[in-house]
Amino acid sequence: MAAFPDEEYSERLARTRTRMGEAGVDVLLITDPANMNYLTGYDAWSFYVPQAVIVPLNDDAPYWYGRGMDAQSAVLTTTLPRDHILSYADDYVENPAKHPFEHLATVLKEHGRERARIGYEGNAYFFTARNLQVLTESMPHAKFVDIDLMVNWVRTVKSANEIEVFRQAARIIENVMQVAIDAVNVGTRQCDAAALISAAQIRGTKEYGGDAPANPPSILSAENAATPHASWSDRPFSPDTATCLELSGCRLRYHCAMSRTVYLGKPPADLLRVA
Amino acid sequence: MAAFPDEEYSERLARTRTRMGEAGVDVLLITDPANMNYLTGYDAWSFYVPQAVIVPLNDDAPYWYGRGMDAQSAVLTTTLPRDHILSYADDYVENPAKHPFEHLATVLKEHGRERARIGYEGNAYFFTARNLQVLTESMPHAKFVDIDLMVNWVRTVKSANEIEVFRQAARIIENVMQVAIDAVNVGTRQCDAAALISAAQIRGTKEYGGDAPANPPSILSAENAATPHASWSDRPFSPDTATCLELSGCRLRYHCAMSRTVYLGKPPADLLRVA
Repeated sequence: MAAFPDEEYSERLARTRTRMGEAGVDVLLITDPANMNYLTGYDAWSFYVPQAVIVPLNDDAPYWYGRGMDAQSAVLTTTLPRDHILSYADDYVENPAKHPFEHLATVLKEHGRERARIGYEGNAYFFTARNLQVLTESMPHAKFVDIDLMVNWVRTVKSANEIEVFRQAARIIENVMQVAIDAVNVGTRQCDAAALISAAQIRGTKEYGGDAPANPPSILSAENAATPHASWSDRPFSPDTATCLELSGCRLRYHCAMSRTVYLGKPPADLLRVA
Repeated sequence: MAAFPDEEYSERLARTRTRMGEAGVDVLLITDPANMNYLTGYDAWSFYVPQAVIVPLNDDAPYWYGRGMDAQSAVLTTTLPRDHILSYADDYVENPAKHPFEHLATVLKEHGRERARIGYEGNAYFFTARNLQVLTESMPHAKFVDIDLMVNWVRTVKSANEIEVFRQAARIIENVMQVAIDAVNVGTRQCDAAALISAAQIRGTKEYGGDAPANPPSILSAENAATPHASWSDRPFSPDTATCLELSGCRLRYHCAMSRTVYLGKPPADLLRVA
């Protein structure tokens, strides 16, 4: 079962197809996991192997394409017709002699896409240089078009369903940030604070559980406060130091982010001035 | 400060350079975050923007290349000379008019690499199709060579330092799995079990804290037990169901994994037979 009602996905697809028409592509190959989830509901931790959602310009339902063992997650989390859930055999995985997207090319050709204009997400991470190379070599008569952030732009318009889920994520982060502020104390190990924060993120509220946010808790203390993306350590928080907390609540993959700074001791005048 | 002593990184570089010589490349462009960490110690959550470690075949120290705001993490987590920490301005980030790897190409040319044989990781996720396209267009006289898993193969030989860290990760997962088995109970929400598991992973042991593992806890209960990579939900665990737990302990980015299955009730004969 997908996270949202069928009409939500129909509406998303319709808006995507309007842009496909404008861009002159016959079929989209969506590989950004967030965009795959947006268009079909697909939700599983499988991005580490090649996978895609194939969106035809016509009214046909999209296709999910991925590793065989993950096809069951497509059955469980999407409302795609069973015969639109396609997959490759496990001997394609990490095999230097053959690549899953060679198989995908065969599938696309079987679907009459041999000479299609195929849109791909050229700068989406997980869409590797090899992915494109294999596709272009396997389908010399197709035209590949980099559609960049097409689905991301469609996503900027949020539905009422989505806004409700954001509100749930907001309730989660309100609680998470309070847990974090309470956890940052002189002598507490940074990892122990991170543990409490992560637990609060995943536990969510009594009404709705949380997801693991896309990034681990950002807890930047002492010298690490000079950089935005360092990891926590197992050193204790020191007196007279600032700790930046950049955290989120996550519900059904929708994030609500919040940042706060905790100072242990009497903050210097410069810090108070910018507070 | 890097996680391991200087000699550890020197040895890793020496073994990498032997393979570079065999492959006939003058310089490596390493973009897999795990391989960047392996070669230099660099440790920050910054893979979502283009970044790289540049390894010259000669004895010169590697270069870190990434977003300006993350350069400070390179200062804090590597022992690279300051003038080997290079970065691009923030107006390159998500800018449709210019790409960070155009700037990287300029840097490589300034370092005399205009006609070099440059090895890249073609199937590493985060090395997008666009990354390669920008590089090849910006450096028409260079020869780009897909070195695939070169550094991953170097990594297969573990040092004494690494084995010690694996042992620490093993102590963490032993505790995590016990927490998990205790947490899976009829009526407990799956997300509440996940919260306890994540906290145990990050807290680590009294002696050494944990990192966030590369993947969130895999807690596959009831119908989700039929697929390997589903997410937990906020539904409670049901009686007479199997729950597969695929978890890890992580220390300094080194993982030790463990899988167990919990059955709530009297397991069916088939399950007992394979136990």
